[in-house]
Amino acid sequence: MEDIAEPTLLLNEDICRSNIERMAAKSQNHGLRFKPHMKTHQSAQIGTWLADAGVEEITVSSVKMAKYFAENGWDNITIAFPSNIRQIKQINQLAEITALTLLLNSSATVKALDAELSSKVKAYIEIDTGSNRTGLKTSAIYEIKELISIIRATQYIEWIGFYSHPGHSYSARSIDEIRQIHQSVTEQFMTLKTKLEGPIGSFEVCVGDTPCCSKGTQFKGIDAVSPGNFVFYDLMQYQIGSCTIDDIAVALSCPIVDTYPERNELAIHGGAVHFSKEVLQSDNSSHYGLVAEMLDGHWNIINQNSYLKALSQEHGIVKCTDNVFSKYQVGDSITILPVHSCLTANLMREFRLTNGQTISQLN
Amino acid sequence: MEDIAEPTLLLNEDICRSNIERMAAKSQNHGLRFKPHMKTHQSAQIGTWLADAGVEEITVSSVKMAKYFAENGWDNITIAFPSNIRQIKQINQLAEITALTLLLNSSATVKALDAELSSKVKAYIEIDTGSNRTGLKTSAIYEIKELISIIRATQYIEWIGFYSHPGHSYSARSIDEIRQIHQSVTEQFMTLKTKLEGPIGSFEVCVGDTPCCSKGTQFKGIDAVSPGNFVFYDLMQYQIGSCTIDDIAVALSCPIVDTYPERNELAIHGGAVHFSKEVLQSDNSSHYGLVAEMLDGHWNIINQNSYLKALSQEHGIVKCTDNVFSKYQVGDSITILPVHSCLTANLMREFRLTNGQTISQLN
Repeated sequence: MEDIAEPTLLLNEDICRSNIERMAAKSQNHGLRFKPHMKTHQSAQIGTWLADAGVEEITVSSVKMAKYFAENGWDNITIAFPSNIRQIKQINQLAEITALTLLLNSSATVKALDAELSSKVKAYIEIDTGSNRTGLKTSAIYEIKELISIIRATQYIEWIGFYSHPGHSYSARSIDEIRQIHQSVTEQFMTLKTKLEGPIGSFEVCVGDTPCCSKGTQFKGIDAVSPGNFVFYDLMQYQIGSCTIDDIAVALSCPIVDTYPERNELAIHGGAVHFSKEVLQSDNSSHYGLVAEMLDGHWNIINQNSYLKALSQEHGIVKCTDNVFSKYQVGDSITILPVHSCLTANLMREFRLTNGQTISQLN
Repeated sequence: MEDIAEPTLLLNEDICRSNIERMAAKSQNHGLRFKPHMKTHQSAQIGTWLADAGVEEITVSSVKMAKYFAENGWDNITIAFPSNIRQIKQINQLAEITALTLLLNSSATVKALDAELSSKVKAYIEIDTGSNRTGLKTSAIYEIKELISIIRATQYIEWIGFYSHPGHSYSARSIDEIRQIHQSVTEQFMTLKTKLEGPIGSFEVCVGDTPCCSKGTQFKGIDAVSPGNFVFYDLMQYQIGSCTIDDIAVALSCPIVDTYPERNELAIHGGAVHFSKEVLQSDNSSHYGLVAEMLDGHWNIINQNSYLKALSQEHGIVKCTDNVFSKYQVGDSITILPVHSCLTANLMREFRLTNGQTISQLN
């Protein structure tokens, strides 16, 4: 740590591999295909850790990310984002080098793509199981059947089933609340299967949010899972109830540039361009991260009263307890657990392992 | 615009150059040295537009940014961030190729730097004029005099004056409120000059926030200004009162990937990794950007009721009025003014000019 001169994203490989192995084993135990989402780490090297755990299919959130992982040897990729017909050229290039599954939610998109595709692709229809973001509601049976027919009438697109990101699980604040949401998701897909499998034939269902995949106990009606954040977890997932503090695999190490004893605050090099402005709201406070120290592989001295209080572009202000404040001086570095590891990793663009090695991301 | 396939940061060069020329002229009219902050654009090419307006000295917020601009020909650079002694190696490399001014706020930093500097540098002491971020209060006269003495006793560091970023101007919500804050800042420096110029000799004062530099009408006690955001402005500056909507020089063009007539919402490719999660709060709403269209060089159809309502990593959800919703369909792109142009530009890393040319940033 002595040579850390600027904000540095630390990655604990042991914790990360343990998170990966736990999710891979859980998927196998429940008979689920495991198609992890790569958006959190965006790193070919971390992709190899997933391959080490037996992963053969992956999920990404953009054509750019799909291209990066295809070029790094992945040959079965789902782009879990409503297909953008302006990217037809890039989609065609990709479909030549990897087996590609798209999300198709509207007949306009299906028709526009089919007119210009030059290779075969597979497609999920996205289901909105309650997040109110994108996809069709399971109640829209007529529209779903219609869209399946339209896809089946195309030359290049094979419909294989449904995809959902139950993002409303992020509103949970306990394992029980996560499980209630997860149960509602599985029930929606059981109902959909009952209504459709007669007229339509068999199909698969893939869901992919870290809270439900981490804490769900039954996966009836679900065939595959594609969580992403679980590789690192973060304070938001801890608040939701998806993980323990010791499951968090990344932290930002930031040089301390000033100290303010009269207000128990440290000024650090570490701002919105490093952490992101994702804020964690609790009942009576909000913050951008918590001070922590790694001791024997566990996060120690984590304290809701020593937190990243304010961020500007490059500056961070850390509010401390007396005890925490007394430990640090100008020239030290301080370790802070991030609120949202996906956004922090996206900004930092590289990770530093405990052994000092730096590993890179999609640029 | 027809070839925009993914989220693209549009930059209107005319508006940007006009913002630059207006601030350069204002500085000249008030007899102020103009040392614009480059953190907002981080682009060598936009740097040349500043040079075209007569700029000879610049301000940056990190050693990395200083290195980039030094390598692009700037030879007088202030790093407006409390000096990080862990970066002494990089500071020494920089001081060999450019005239460097640092911010020094503590005796520990001064002593640590002076022990390892290999070239001469200049230094400001940072003053906290009310933002409660970093720097010394003007009331801490004893500490300020002590620090000046410590700097003057060094071999390599020349003390030249004071720097302040009155970031508390961001809490203003009208031109009058900006001017009240600006007046308090100028009064603090007038008092400091009265107290110090006898015993200490002459020195300079540089302040650098976009609201005060844009709307201040008198600059007594101030010798130089270093605003940054003014090159682009954004919705936050508009809310503060620093600019008009027509002064905003950047906007994100995002492909529409789904439409939801039952809730008047558009799903776009444009998420937290493009806009940042900077949110604009007003009395009864919050949003991440506003829908706008450029018409004859002016922003048209801007409407507080058509706004970027939600962001996930790559997805954005745009809530629309009936009228705005009716104009768009899947496959179109939509233009959204960002809340905080500095963070959006930092994420996007390149700009597309109206003529289609792409210009890059520090990578």
